[in-house]
Amino acid sequence: MNLSRRDFSKLGAMGLASRMLPEGFGQTSSRKIGYCVIGIGRIADHFLRGVQESSHSKITGFVSGHRDKAERFAAQYGVPKDSIYNYEDMDRMIDNKQIDAVYVALPNNMHAEYTIRSAKAGKHVLCEKPMSTTVADAEAMIAACKSANVKLMIAYRLHYEPFNLKAIQMIRNGDIGEVQTINGAFGFNSPQGEWRLTKKYGGGGSLFDVGIYVVNACRYLTGEEPASFTGITSTLDHDGRFNEVEENVSWTMKFPSGILATGSSTYGTQMPGYFKVFGTKGWLGMNPAYNYDGLRLQANYWKTPGSPLVKIDEINPERDPKQFAREADHMSECILNNRTPSSPGEEGLRDMRYIKAIYHAAGVDVA
Amino acid sequence: MNLSRRDFSKLGAMGLASRMLPEGFGQTSSRKIGYCVIGIGRIADHFLRGVQESSHSKITGFVSGHRDKAERFAAQYGVPKDSIYNYEDMDRMIDNKQIDAVYVALPNNMHAEYTIRSAKAGKHVLCEKPMSTTVADAEAMIAACKSANVKLMIAYRLHYEPFNLKAIQMIRNGDIGEVQTINGAFGFNSPQGEWRLTKKYGGGGSLFDVGIYVVNACRYLTGEEPASFTGITSTLDHDGRFNEVEENVSWTMKFPSGILATGSSTYGTQMPGYFKVFGTKGWLGMNPAYNYDGLRLQANYWKTPGSPLVKIDEINPERDPKQFAREADHMSECILNNRTPSSPGEEGLRDMRYIKAIYHAAGVDVA
Repeated sequence: MNLSRRDFSKLGAMGLASRMLPEGFGQTSSRKIGYCVIGIGRIADHFLRGVQESSHSKITGFVSGHRDKAERFAAQYGVPKDSIYNYEDMDRMIDNKQIDAVYVALPNNMHAEYTIRSAKAGKHVLCEKPMSTTVADAEAMIAACKSANVKLMIAYRLHYEPFNLKAIQMIRNGDIGEVQTINGAFGFNSPQGEWRLTKKYGGGGSLFDVGIYVVNACRYLTGEEPASFTGITSTLDHDGRFNEVEENVSWTMKFPSGILATGSSTYGTQMPGYFKVFGTKGWLGMNPAYNYDGLRLQANYWKTPGSPLVKIDEINPERDPKQFAREADHMSECILNNRTPSSPGEEGLRDMRYIKAIYHAAGVDVA
Repeated sequence: MNLSRRDFSKLGAMGLASRMLPEGFGQTSSRKIGYCVIGIGRIADHFLRGVQESSHSKITGFVSGHRDKAERFAAQYGVPKDSIYNYEDMDRMIDNKQIDAVYVALPNNMHAEYTIRSAKAGKHVLCEKPMSTTVADAEAMIAACKSANVKLMIAYRLHYEPFNLKAIQMIRNGDIGEVQTINGAFGFNSPQGEWRLTKKYGGGGSLFDVGIYVVNACRYLTGEEPASFTGITSTLDHDGRFNEVEENVSWTMKFPSGILATGSSTYGTQMPGYFKVFGTKGWLGMNPAYNYDGLRLQANYWKTPGSPLVKIDEINPERDPKQFAREADHMSECILNNRTPSSPGEEGLRDMRYIKAIYHAAGVDVA
């Protein structure tokens, strides 16, 4: 890869440069960072299995409202019973030296409280996306971690996934020329009764939970921050699921260089996640782009006008939970080497602002 | 195919129902409709070759500003020299009984004048898309053809293309459930100096010429007319090509049922044309969707929840200029049987209104 100084500084601004360095920071100790998992739902299960495959991470605690479930998991991961907390007494973990960091895997609206309480307990925080349900909460989370002198990383697992990183590299290398337009989508069919269908818990609709992948991808693919937005929302499926949040949302974003992007997301149907990037010398895309595994990268471009078409079509053979192992180890290496995570709180805050801007453009009231 | 009465009437409103009937109208005579081609550019060449492969159509005249070029084509297609006209004397074709209809393949801003003059000469009109550069011109074209009692068809060749029709059928059949969201794009790299880069000739930028395919596809795929629009435009490539029209445009459309669509087009790079339709039971897409041949249809859907995934991946083996043959024969059959074309002037007018609405949403002044 040939990165110009300007390209590299652009990557640096996105926090991506360090991920293009050889694996490991050179100084990483053999000590493993101990994580307390807060909230034992579907994604926590991926994280737990990911940590099992990691190099610098281990599970050392649980916070859950279901003691029996927590005890089952604790037994499975070799965590002593006195490292199991509930939501009321979790602040006691300040005295637990086995816990270096927490992984916040709660409904969106609980991210702020549990990040801030963990920071106050002296623990580094790896928090799931979306970072919060409001811009104000995101700002408070950053301030709390700064004040407690702990690291805050948002769990943008695709920032550490080789195929998404390769797509970024190819674009920075100029393989597809100057990027002009990006299209993307991601959505799924949310069952009735899930917390995400309640605005208070989710912050809003699918844009917070899955559309965020498209917003974030457009940013890491371009290396730019979007400057203007349009948005529309709708609900087709009047079965009572969508009384609080919209079913579908689509939007456009314009970046400072003039790159245009469109995005779509939904809670109303399976919408396989993809992005397509059109440049002056060709295109590249991923589909699936955001899944836990099976990611596929395709590209067609010309090295010079008239030269044969270069065709790329590759599937990442890594299986779930490898992305979670990479994510956990990035956080652990940052803690061990006192580095700032490549996807810090400020990265999550930006997406919160853009999500808010899209909803506001669509006339939807979010905080 | 099982079409409910409501579905069929929806198709009828889109002018698509007749294309789902068995080929031929039953009464078609063996007489071939004679076409005079107005403007001998790239697309006219496809049409001429298409007519050679057609069943009910033949070439019987030319209108061109280049007599020598017209004579070469006339010789090739067996058209007598006295059926070659120039832009000044073409009205004389009123006396030419060999010419039943004209095919208008001129720059966009000339469509109105030559459609109206042809109608006044008593000739049916097959006019390329976009129908015109302004809504007022489109309305005048419809009025002129009505007043002259001649047929007006807009050359939406994909309305007669089997794979696009199959995609429509599958959606109407409910194969992918209720449609929620559509994404699409189409663009190409316009060389410096082309008429389409001059606003007066093209009407505006790529939305008139190629984005129109996406707008039109969203309409025939949904069977609905879009009700609201957002749009953004940009120019990245400051090489002087885009002093009059924008390089890139992206937009959203919302349909009355709540279906959301995003679209992108450009004159700044090759943007392979596609659409993706996400429904409650799966998705279908075409890529390429709008090319002259090689069209590919893919779909993944569940017949019932939990049943095995139905996977479709087919390439239309028909080669260019077959689409033009189908288009010409539809027009010819309509003339021979005194039927209204499935893509009449009113269909073109609707797209003109939507293009204008998108540009206006983007703050671009078009007429």
